This record gives sequence, C-alpha cells and structure tokens, in this order.
Amino acid sequence: MDSKQYLFLFEEGRADMRALLGGKGANLAEMTRLGLPVPPGFTISTVACTDYYNKGGIMPEGLMDAVLGGIRVLEKKTGRTFGGRSSPLLVSVRSGAAVSMPGMMDTILNLGLNDDTVEGLARETGDPRFAYDCYRRLIQMFGNVVLGVVHDAYERVLARMREKHSVTSDHMLGLDALRELIGEYKELTRFPQDPDVQLEQAITAVFRSWNNPRAQLYRKINKIPDDLGTAVNIQAMVFGNMGEDSGTGVLFTRNPSNGERVRFGEYLTNAQGEDVVAGIRTPKPLSDMESELPDVYRDVLKMADLLEKHYRDMQDIEFTFEKRRLYLLQTRTGKRTAKAAVKIAYDMANEGLITKEEALMRVEPSHVEKILHRGIDATAQLDVIASGLPASPGAATGEAVFDADVAEARGSRGERVILIRPETTPDDMHGIVHAQGILTSRGGMTCHAAIVARGMGKPCVVGCEQMRIDPEARVAQVNGREIKEGMVVSIDGSTGRVIMGEVPLVNPDPGDEFRELLGWADEIKRLGVYANADTPEDARRAREFGATGIGLCRTEHMFMAQDRLPVMQEMILAFTAEERKAALDKLLLMQKQDFVGILEAMKGYPVTIRLLDPPLHEFLPNIEHLVLEIERLRVSGAPETEIKDRQNLLKKARALAEANPMLGFRGCRLGMVYPEIYEMQAEAIFSAAAELIQKGMDVRPEVMIPLVSIAQELAALKERIDKVAEAVMARTGVRIPYKVGTMIEVPRAALTADEIAEHAEFFSFGTNDLTQTTYGFSRDDAEAKFLHHYIHEKVLSGNPFQSLDTAGVGELIKMAVSKGRAKKPGLKIGICGEHGGDPDSIRFCHHAGLDYVSCSPFRVPVARLAAAQAQITGK
Amino acid sequence: MDSKQYLFLFEEGRADMRALLGGKGANLAEMTRLGLPVPPGFTISTVACTDYYNKGGIMPEGLMDAVLGGIRVLEKKTGRTFGGRSSPLLVSVRSGAAVSMPGMMDTILNLGLNDDTVEGLARETGDPRFAYDCYRRLIQMFGNVVLGVVHDAYERVLARMREKHSVTSDHMLGLDALRELIGEYKELTRFPQDPDVQLEQAITAVFRSWNNPRAQLYRKINKIPDDLGTAVNIQAMVFGNMGEDSGTGVLFTRNPSNGERVRFGEYLTNAQGEDVVAGIRTPKPLSDMESELPDVYRDVLKMADLLEKHYRDMQDIEFTFEKRRLYLLQTRTGKRTAKAAVKIAYDMANEGLITKEEALMRVEPSHVEKILHRGIDATAQLDVIASGLPASPGAATGEAVFDADVAEARGSRGERVILIRPETTPDDMHGIVHAQGILTSRGGMTCHAAIVARGMGKPCVVGCEQMRIDPEARVAQVNGREIKEGMVVSIDGSTGRVIMGEVPLVNPDPGDEFRELLGWADEIKRLGVYANADTPEDARRAREFGATGIGLCRTEHMFMAQDRLPVMQEMILAFTAEERKAALDKLLLMQKQDFVGILEAMKGYPVTIRLLDPPLHEFLPNIEHLVLEIERLRVSGAPETEIKDRQNLLKKARALAEANPMLGFRGCRLGMVYPEIYEMQAEAIFSAAAELIQKGMDVRPEVMIPLVSIAQELAALKERIDKVAEAVMARTGVRIPYKVGTMIEVPRAALTADEIAEHAEFFSFGTNDLTQTTYGFSRDDAEAKFLHHYIHEKVLSGNPFQSLDTAGVGELIKMAVSKGRAKKPGLKIGICGEHGGDPDSIRFCHHAGLDYVSCSPFRVPVARLAAAQAQITGK
Repeated sequence: MDSKQYLFLFEEGRADMRALLGGKGANLAEMTRLGLPVPPGFTISTVACTDYYNKGGIMPEGLMDAVLGGIRVLEKKTGRTFGGRSSPLLVSVRSGAAVSMPGMMDTILNLGLNDDTVEGLARETGDPRFAYDCYRRLIQMFGNVVLGVVHDAYERVLARMREKHSVTSDHMLGLDALRELIGEYKELTRFPQDPDVQLEQAITAVFRSWNNPRAQLYRKINKIPDDLGTAVNIQAMVFGNMGEDSGTGVLFTRNPSNGERVRFGEYLTNAQGEDVVAGIRTPKPLSDMESELPDVYRDVLKMADLLEKHYRDMQDIEFTFEKRRLYLLQTRTGKRTAKAAVKIAYDMANEGLITKEEALMRVEPSHVEKILHRGIDATAQLDVIASGLPASPGAATGEAVFDADVAEARGSRGERVILIRPETTPDDMHGIVHAQGILTSRGGMTCHAAIVARGMGKPCVVGCEQMRIDPEARVAQVNGREIKEGMVVSIDGSTGRVIMGEVPLVNPDPGDEFRELLGWADEIKRLGVYANADTPEDARRAREFGATGIGLCRTEHMFMAQDRLPVMQEMILAFTAEERKAALDKLLLMQKQDFVGILEAMKGYPVTIRLLDPPLHEFLPNIEHLVLEIERLRVSGAPETEIKDRQNLLKKARALAEANPMLGFRGCRLGMVYPEIYEMQAEAIFSAAAELIQKGMDVRPEVMIPLVSIAQELAALKERIDKVAEAVMARTGVRIPYKVGTMIEVPRAALTADEIAEHAEFFSFGTNDLTQTTYGFSRDDAEAKFLHHYIHEKVLSGNPFQSLDTAGVGELIKMAVSKGRAKKPGLKIGICGEHGGDPDSIRFCHHAGLDYVSCSPFRVPVARLAAAQAQITGK
Repeated sequence: MDSKQYLFLFEEGRADMRALLGGKGANLAEMTRLGLPVPPGFTISTVACTDYYNKGGIMPEGLMDAVLGGIRVLEKKTGRTFGGRSSPLLVSVRSGAAVSMPGMMDTILNLGLNDDTVEGLARETGDPRFAYDCYRRLIQMFGNVVLGVVHDAYERVLARMREKHSVTSDHMLGLDALRELIGEYKELTRFPQDPDVQLEQAITAVFRSWNNPRAQLYRKINKIPDDLGTAVNIQAMVFGNMGEDSGTGVLFTRNPSNGERVRFGEYLTNAQGEDVVAGIRTPKPLSDMESELPDVYRDVLKMADLLEKHYRDMQDIEFTFEKRRLYLLQTRTGKRTAKAAVKIAYDMANEGLITKEEALMRVEPSHVEKILHRGIDATAQLDVIASGLPASPGAATGEAVFDADVAEARGSRGERVILIRPETTPDDMHGIVHAQGILTSRGGMTCHAAIVARGMGKPCVVGCEQMRIDPEARVAQVNGREIKEGMVVSIDGSTGRVIMGEVPLVNPDPGDEFRELLGWADEIKRLGVYANADTPEDARRAREFGATGIGLCRTEHMFMAQDRLPVMQEMILAFTAEERKAALDKLLLMQKQDFVGILEAMKGYPVTIRLLDPPLHEFLPNIEHLVLEIERLRVSGAPETEIKDRQNLLKKARALAEANPMLGFRGCRLGMVYPEIYEMQAEAIFSAAAELIQKGMDVRPEVMIPLVSIAQELAALKERIDKVAEAVMARTGVRIPYKVGTMIEVPRAALTADEIAEHAEFFSFGTNDLTQTTYGFSRDDAEAKFLHHYIHEKVLSGNPFQSLDTAGVGELIKMAVSKGRAKKPGLKIGICGEHGGDPDSIRFCHHAGLDYVSCSPFRVPVARLAAAQAQITGK
C-alpha cells in the first residue's frame, strides 16, 4: 500500500470520501472546503487502520513520518510549535469510522501538553488555571483511553479534591487544586512527557479502540462489517475552557426527538466538548445563549442553516467557541427518533428540500414499527415519582437494576429490566442493549445514554436530577420514595416521567404526517401488501393499516374454540366416513359464520383462506397426560368403563402420534386422505361468499391448499373444490369469483413449480415451513437448542426465521417464480410467512418479482414503506 | 384416426412393430416374413383398443368392416368359409399387448363353430368326436371369457360327465358324451350362433380384458403404463386335437429354470394349446417326442434353432401339429429365472451370439438380487414329505393357506404364507403376489403358476401329483401325512421338494458365471460401487461382493452396544465440559478399536466414516416410560433418592426432547455445540489409522460431517478435525492420507453447494434425509399414514424412499454436482442413501456424474450391474 494514502489534510478531502476518511474526517474536509471555520487538521485514513490490523497490530511503515509531516503543516498554519515551550501546538486525536458509531470509540484532547508546554500555554494565555485544567484533562483522558486506567480512579481523586476545596463542580477548582490534582493523576498514570510519543500512543489507541468490546457489540447490533477500520482525525485544539466567553456545544438543526423545525441544542461555557457528551455537567439549552452570547448564537444559527441546506438533512453539529470565536468541530447527519424521522422527512419534502422518494428513504422501516408502539394511557392514574428529560420516546416497564452486568444477565434471560445509573458510559453498552429502558440522574438530551437509546429506539429518561442514585447500594431515592433493585418501575421517554409500578398502554395515533408519508409509499411501491388475519377484528385492523387483501387466513384456530373442539374431536374419533361426515356437518355451520365475518370485513379485496393445515393430533389431549391419568384411574379403582374411555382416546392419540409432526400427516395430506374435511371447508367458504354476494357485496375468496409437494395433490384437490363451488353456485344461482391456489412451503414444490403451476391460480410462499425444510431445522427445536449458538458464533449472520435466507430459501423462491410463470405467465405470487413483514425480506420479494407480501396487521405499514424503498433504490 | 391403421395382415408386419401390433402379433408377422409355417391371420392394432377406450367402450367405426375384410382374405388363403356349412373356417382370437403379460389376458379358440358348422367340420374331417370336442371348447371359452360364466360351472359339468362315463380325462369322452356335454353347456351359456356376432363379441372381450383386475394388478407390479392397450390376433385354426398324431406344445430354446443349453419343452397329444397352459393335464417332456413323433420332433428342433439365432435370445415357442404337420403359433423372448438369465447371457456371449454388453443388458438387476437369495442348507436333516416339479427356484417357508383371498389378507399383514392349490389361474394372482411361495398338485413347468412365479422370482413347486389338495376343507394329504391350514411348510423351488416345518438357510454360491459376468460389468461401468457397513464383518462381506470402498460407516450404532450405552449416557448427563470429556475418554478407546477393525478389513480402499448423527435423546430412556415409572415408584413408597434419580433422568430427557427430532439437534449441530464429541471421534479414527499404517497397511479414512446446511458449519468442523489429525500425525510420526467431506442431505446444502465445496474434499448425498426434507415427508410418519394411499391413488408413481424422485430430489442433486464441481473441479461425489442400491436411482447417479454409489453389502452386485447398464445404454 502506498503510504501516501495514509494521510489527507482536511483541504484534500470531500464528503464523499467517507470510506477512506471516516464520517467525521470527510465532513471536516467538506466543511473546510466550504470555507467554514474548522481548526486545521488532517485525517489518517482507514487504510492505515486496516493495515495496522493486517500486520498484526504493528504501526504501518511510514505512517508516523507522514503524521509528523502533517504536524509540521499544522505548525505552519497556526504559527505554533508541537512540544514548544512557547506557543505550544495542542491537538485533538479522534477516531472516526465510515459508519457512525457515536461514543463507541475514543478521543483524546489537548495532546501535546507536558510539564514544560503547560507552562508555555499558561504564559501565552495568561491563564494558568486554564492551562492546568487542559493538562489534567489530557492526563485523565490519556490515562483512561491509552493506558487503560479506569475512569473511576480519576473520578475518586476529583471527588476528593472537590470535597477538600469545598466546590461542587470541577470547573470551580482553583489553580492550586488543579496542580495538586495533576500530581495525584500522575501517580495513577504512566504519562509520557514527549509529545511525539503521546501522539503515536494515541493513534495506536484509536486503532485499537476499533476492536474494543463495546465497539464490536455496537457493530454487531447495527450489522456493520468488522473489517472497515477507523480513521483518525488530528486537529489543532481550540479551547472552550478559556473562561466564561468560551464554551462548547451541540446543535441539532431540527428537534431529534419529535422532528419539529426548531434549532435544538445545548452548550456549556468554560468547558471542553467531552463535558457535554459525557453528561457530567448538565448543559444549558441553546435558547439561553441568545441572551448570554448573542453574537456566538447568531453565528451558530447561520452555520446550522448553511449545513442543513448543504447536506439536505438534519445535522448534528459540534462546536466550540474560544473567546466568542466560533469553530465547527464536527457535523453529521443527526440520529433521530422514529417520530422525528417521519416528521423531518415529511417536512423537508414539503419544503422542497428533498423529493418524496428521498423522504421515504429517510424513514427506516424500524421507525414505522416504533411509531406504532403502544404508549401510556393518558387517562390512567399514575404514581409519578419524579421527572427528567424525555430523551428517547416510548414507555418501558421493568424491574429496577443498577448495574449493566445485571441488566445483561437478567435481560438476556428474557426478564424485563430498567437500567438506572447516575450516568451511562460506553462501558454500559451491554446493559443498555438488554434493558427495556434507561433512567439516569445526570446528562442532557445529547448525553451518551440519550444518543444510544434513541439509536436503538429504547425509551430513555435522563437528567432526573432530583433522584439520588446509589449503584453500590442498589437503590435510588427521590422525594422521600425509594426504588430498590427488583421493584417494578416505568419510564415515559416521551414526557420524562418516572412512574412506580406497571402502566396501562394504549395504541398510538401515528399522526397525519405518518399517514401521508405512507400514502406516498403506496403511490410508488409495486408490491401489494396483504395481511395475515384469522378473525374479522384482525381483518378490520389490517384494512386500517392499509392492507389491500388477506394473504393468509388460517382456519385451524377456528376449530380450537371451546365450543368447537369437542365436535372436532368427534370428527377425528369417527370410525367411518359417515360418522366423520356427521361431525363435519356440525362444523360446517360454524365455519360458514367465520367466513361470512372475514369476507365481509375485507369486501372489495381478496381473502386467501388456507384449508386445515395442522396434524389432527393437535386437537387431541397429550399422550403423556393420558398415560398418567389412566394409571391413576386404575390405582384409584375407577370404573372399568371410564378407564376404557380414556384408553380408547389414548389409542387414537397414539395412532395419530408422529415422530416428526412438522413433516407428517398434515396439510393437503389430510385433505387427500379425508377429502370430506376440505369439502366441508370449501362448502363453508362458498356458501358464505354466495350469501354476501346476494347482499350485493364484492367478495373474493381465494382457497389455498397447504403443504403441496406433488402437482397431483393440487390437481386432485382443486378438482374437488371446483366441484363444491359449482354445486354452491348452481344451488344459489350466484356467480362467485374465486381462485384456487397453493402454498409453496416445501422445497419440492419450488423445484417442481412448473408442474404445480398447471393447477394453481396463485402461489403463496410459506417461508416459515420452507425455511424449516430447506435448512432441515425444526424451528422450535433449533431456537431452543442451537440457533442462538450459531448466531453468536457467526455461523449464521442472523436468524433465518426472521430475515429470509436469500442464498438457500431465496434461491428456491426465485426458481419457483421463474418455473411457475414460465408455465403460467402472470401467475399471482405472494409470500405469507413471517418474513412478509421483514424489510430485508420484502426487498428480496420485490426483486424476485412477487406480486404481494402478507404480514401481521401491525406490520403492514412497515411493509408498505419497505416495498416503496425497494422500488426507489432498485436494489 | 385412419381406420387403415386398425388392421394388419401378418405379412404386413415386422418384429419391430410391437407397439402397434403387440408382441404376439409382431412376432407372428416376423415368422410369416421368415417363411415359417404360421397359419394365416391378421392383427387388430393397439390403436383400435385405445380408440375403443377413448370412445368410452364403443367399437371404433369401420373396425368390424375391416375385420370382416380380413376374414375374406383368410377364406381365400385357406379355401374355407367363415360360417360355412362345409369346410368352415375356424379362427382363434387372442390378445397380445406390446409388453408381455403372460396369462393375464384372454384367448378364444375354434371361433366360427355353431350347430351347423360343427356338422360340416365333422363331415370334412370324418371325425365327429374331434368336431364336437372343438365345439364344446369354444362354448366353454366363449362363455367364460366373453360372457363371464365362471370356470368352475363348466368344470362341474365336465366332472359329472367324466364320472357318468367312467373316464379319468376329458379327451377320453366319446361323441355321445360330448354332445350331451354341449347340451348342458348351452344351458349355462347364451352362446351366439352367428359367427360374425361371435367374432365381434370376442374382439370386444379381448379389448375389455386389458382392464380386468388381474391385468391391472400385473401392470402395476411390473410398472407397465395403463394406456398402451392390447392388440388382437385373429388367426386360422389348426388343430392339435385331431387325434394322437396331432398335438400342441411349448418349447424353450434353453432351460428357463437353470439356463442350461438344452431344448426344454412339453407337449400333449390330441390337445389344444389351452390344455398345456392351463395345467389341467400334466404334459409329457419334449424328449418323449423324439421316439413318439420323430419327424415332428426334428421339425420343432429346427424351428427352435432358427428362431433363437434370428432373435438372438432364448425363445419361448408355442406350436401345434395337426396330423404331424407343424405350425408355429407364437414365439417370444422366454421368461427365465435369475439363475437362467445369468447363465444364458454368459453362454450366448461366449458362443459369440451376443456381445458382452448385450449379455449384461440381458440380466436384470433384480435377477442379481435373487441369485443372492439364501437357499436351503444342503447338510440339514429335512422332513421331505413330497416332491413336485421345480418350477421356480429358491426356498420359501410359511403357513399353509389354500385360498388366494386368505393368502392376500394374511400376506398383506406381513405374515408368511405358502399358497397351496390344485392349480392356479389368473384369478389367483392377488394371492400369489402376497405368498412366499406356491405349491400345486397339477400343471407342468409351463403352467400358469410356474410362469407367474418365475416372473416374480417366487419359489414354486408344481405338478406335485401325489398330493391330494382339498381347498374347501383347507387340507392337503400326501403319503399319509396331512398339511392343515396354518401349519408351517417349506418348499424348495430348485429341487421340487416339499418339506414340513422351517428349513435352515445358507448363503448361496452364485457361481463362476455370475462372478465373471459381474467382472464384465466392472470393466464397463464408470461409477464406483461402495458399501454401507458399520462393522468389520459387514466390511468383509462388502469386499467379497465387490465393493471398492465404504461409502457410509455409521458410528452411532457403536454407542448402542450394551457396554457402551451407560458411558454414552454418562457423557450426555454430564454437567460440565470436563465431565463430558471424562466420559468421552472412555468412549475413545472403544471407538478406536471399532475403527481399527473396519479400516483393516477395507485396507487399500477408502472408508467414509460419518461422525455422530442422531439426536442425543435417542440414547436416553423413553420419557413416557420414565413418567410411568416415577408414578409407580411414588405410589409404592420407594425411597426418595431413587425417585430423585429417575426424576433427574426425566429432566434431562425432557430437556433433550424435540418436537421434530429429524430436523433437530443432531448431526453437525451437535458437533458445533459440543465440539469435544467430534474431536474424540476424530482422535479415534486417526489413532486407529496411524496404528495400521505403522504396521504397513494402506488405509484411507474419509471423515464425513452429517447434516451440514451452512458452509460455515463445515469450515469450522473441518478446522477442528484437521487439528486433531495434525496432532495425531505429530505424535505418531505417521502421515495419514485422509479426507474431510460432508453429506448433502438437506436442500440448503445442495442450493449452496458452491460455498460448501470450498471446505469439502468430497460430497456424499444422503438421499434418505434429502428426500424427507425435499418433500417435507417424515418417512416414519408418511409410510404409516399416507404414502400407501398416495401410491395406490397414483399421486406418486412409486415410493420416493425406494426409487429416487428425479423431478425434485434429483434436481437438487444435479444442482449440487454442478455448483460443487464449478467451485472445485474433480470434487469426489457419491451417494450413500438407500437409493444407492436401487437400479433406477443408480442410472440417475451415473448420468448426474457421480463418482460412486454406496449401498448395503448385499446390494453391491446389483449396483455393479446397474452401473454397467447405465454406461451401456447411455440413457
């Protein structure tokens, strides 16, 4: 690798060089190019980082020479000297990957200070307190980030010092206190005095931070490849801690929580950037700056406008002002809540800043899902014990825990916990992942906990300052109340409320902007979006969510109802076809009413009804229970007839028991051997349809045969169903527009889709079973026994039951589509497995040429958006 | 359809027109063309028959006109008149399908006789007895075949007549007796006097006979399509019943039972063909003819030589001689036993009559299987109670039954029965199918029972004339002994012996000709033939049968042995990896000895060892039993510790229990989660190999990973196995030539075979599981619950677990071969499912480009032949 590729001055880069320069470096370059006030600096490219790893963790040859060359350029630009006793050049060293990983990696400020240069800085600024504050920050960060000294060790010294000098905040410590502090810090820290050594060690530490556990975890959660590497940005320092006319802040060009078009930010005076992000001091809202520092305020707003227009998206900007002079230290596309994402996208499209297509691409399918999350019932009586900042919306309930490890341990067992901490750091990441929600007593809307929680869509309340949290004692106190570990609490991330106990939830109103945006999606998308619904209520909900059909109406649940199960058992236990027929006649009337309800609810749209699918033994009692019951009846001397009865039932249950029920006597196999079952169902469907059509309704039943593996199965059953339809039409004089089709849910159906298409009016991929049979995974067994292990060990990149396995199952789907349509052009094809609601799988379905996806009613809006996005990106 | 296609004079046809003329018609035409003495005639083509069925069972238009035109031609050729009072033309009407279905369909002789013409025939021949004998035969056959009068009705009249006239045989009945008999027959029979009507009804009856139940059954057994239809041959009669210088017979050009190169036949004087075939009179051996009728004998032998040379295969010839003048009525390729097939093929190749390739094509794979059937131990003391003709070789034992219905009922329940009848008719077919063997008191080597039994490879003894069989009383008596229904008897179809009780069986010596023939197969075939063998004994047997490797050595059976199961359970119940390791160490020593044995037995050849495959719960007791046991212990007040123990076991068994074990935690999934199990097995394999190599042996272990569905599984496990191999090689200083490969037994493995091939040194298709997952059929459940129904209803043409489903599973195999070899050219690929021993599946494997098939040792010779045949036919 040419070592020239290792280093880029800010003026040499551009925004589109993210892969090489990382997001932060590319944006610093872009801002420099735009002539914005960015302190001079350069970026060590991601190539240097990957070379570092490829060489087994050794600094690539020539890198440090190039870096020192870069430092010389900065010296020239600033007129300062790196390591100089007078006018010393100080730099920041920050990581910056191509994909944003906020707070996941490390930063060192004030690098270049040592026992000599600190004096130079003091002399130069005439502010020794400032110089020593910088120095103590450097030692602390260097010790923590580069040398691995734990954060708490410094915090304990700081706390002791605050106490000793009777101040409440670090920035109130005087010069002597700082000198004393530095002395104690040095005892904790093997701090190198040579600035070149500091630089090399700092760069190495940033490289290494790419692979620290919290970064790995973040990448895993966010599906970021492990081999991208991070860039390193080295930049001349400017100082927000040079007194009350200096400061540092963060600004979002729109509200990241609700999306409103107001500048939204926070700042701290006499502080460096880390103070805001770390949440150690609670910052002031940006609005305060208008009166406090009007000129800086005006400059900040101007830059914000400029950057939002330039990037055409909401920006998250870090700035520092040094004696009222503004510098931009970072801009990036701002993370936002689901609600904000929708609002911002909708507004920007209406403002003409972006197109409708771009607006749709700005909203993630997961955002849609979150917007439909249920919230706290506004009418409920709540035991509100405290209030903090509403950092990430949504309500969460769980048992209080005070430690990330406990949160992880209990959360990963499926228990619901709320993680309560004074503040969070990146080291708490694993606990945040496994908690339902986060509550902190410190930090602002832009602190670590807030940013991370919003990114994950987890409810979060921060800066609940009335609350005294004692992690060691595992208790929090507020207003005379106590939260002990294990007590159930709720938080409302939309209002900041902290509530004792469970809270009642209600369905949200997603809002008009949401509905309009999804309307745009409908205009653009090619895929139809149907819902899986078994009841009229489900069907109605699906319609409300925008479904234009039912892709899967399961009929077996209808037989599980309390009044029907005995009749179903009667049918199963029947000895002759006549006895079976008698029981089926009783079921017929019930089934007909089911179908009247669901067809009516979906009038105007197709309703795909799957005939009976599960094995019959699912309707009988458990064998093990029967065995034990008989034994007990026998021991207790129960009458012979009673025992005999149970024994008969046991005998039938045994006869129907199967080694592998998933692959057994179910689906169309039942329909083939006991044709009277499917005939009854067909009779119920067509009678219901005829009745509604006679009332003037437009109903479109589509009869779906499950588990076909041989074309002849479908041919034989279609013939029977057509006969029933003809009979009903002849009897009622009504023409019923219906289709008969099949599920494609075993590999052979896909492999012989051409033969099957001859007899099918539609295909619907049952990707749950298709995934089971393609992998040879029984879902129940796999998830309990080894799937978790596989995902953890990266044998699988994800759970194939959640996101479609394109290499295997997808291959079969493509084959079936191509063979099916070759035989019958225009064949209607959809998917009704759970994958129908998964955005990645929907994209696959779009490109595979399917006509529709069908998913749970709740996921219909997600699917509508994902379908539009697939159409827009074309990939 | 042009009606010209309906009718062909014999001189218009050829041997290669079988499809149109049927086998009999084509051969009659061929013999006519060769100038052999064939009575003139014509054939109604199969097209007429299929038209008959397509029109719903109505005589095709123009057919009868064409037939009557044909009759005019015969009248001209013979100088006789159909229906004429003098010189009446009599004809036979015989069915004849394209595929031989001996005895399955119907024949009518002497057609054209009525109350008038019989007098003309009597006058013309001066032999009224002969004329009336022909007439009574016509009425009987016509009544039985065309009108459906039961055979027994005529037999009872005949028996009464024999008794009344005190004769023992039909042909001893005088003229008056015959006239009286005809009178009684007419009362049973609505016999049409008009010969044209006789003809039309007879043709219709033959058409209909194509679909009679026994023909349907025969076609099903022999996999003959149902839509071919039969031809009808109409031929001028010649008469074997014109006195003692007339007669009829059957000749095989070689012995159909053992294949020896001697003319083999039987004849009856003063008889018509039906008398021989029906087995009513026991015929004389052909050798008697040499002295009795030397001129006819000479002619017969001459014709036999000529026909065998012309057809280049053993012929089964029917002839009639009328006053010493010889006529040929049929020739066809003779059915033969497995033993005869091998001997004839081998001899003909050595005689130069056919090539080695042709010889190999003359032997059916099922023949090979039958030759390896076990026979009666020659040294055993047997209770031989009678002796008959050895009509179809092999030994059979079962309970005596005297009725085809009983034989079917009991045989289909899996019980072993011997069907004992005075004679068999096509109506007994269903009983023959379900019997282990057939024993009759009447009939010769060419009677119905003998022909059918030989075709099916079932042991058969016929013509056991000392035996008095009374089907109504369900008893047989011979030499003072009695066989009652339900008593166990044995028959030896190779010697004709009937033996009381069971007989000890031994492995057969298939003979040198068999071995040489298979040697030719080995020279020709491209596919390797390996065996599935789990023990050194199996491996040795496989070598003897010609296997050149082990394609599947299952290791789980090794853990089921009585001394190992407790250690295996210890391993499963282990709480920690260390405890598991301790149990595995004990198993290691045992496993090593297993592998030493099997590798040594197969030295010089590859041994493919599959690592542990079944789910662990298979090694634990049944849950239902445990539940009941605990309940009983509790009720009986057993000590708490004992109950606790069983409860622990139950807990573990429940934890390991699975909804669908076939798709569960087994195969490489176990190996991934518990790597120490596979590492132990690898250690055992490589240690065993090293030990043998140190002794100078050439051993080639190939380690096979089961149930791979994701390339990464194989990659991870191969890495571990390679590490174990390296460690063993380093420790022993021995280089072990080994391979690591995988089974392809779930669809995803086939679909992603390119990715998998990167890590595999061989593929082996596990078609049992691949069939289960491709169809979504659990074999156990499917065969018990619906597969039988599917085959019966022709939803499936056969059991896909026996013969490979080429449309579905085969498609995956082809895909995997192509993807696998695209990634790794020359990748070794085989099959080790049960299909590896099925000839149709072997043909598929040959064409799919596999390197080898692996099957049970016993089927290795079958596979060698089938592999050669696939190479020879190229299709």
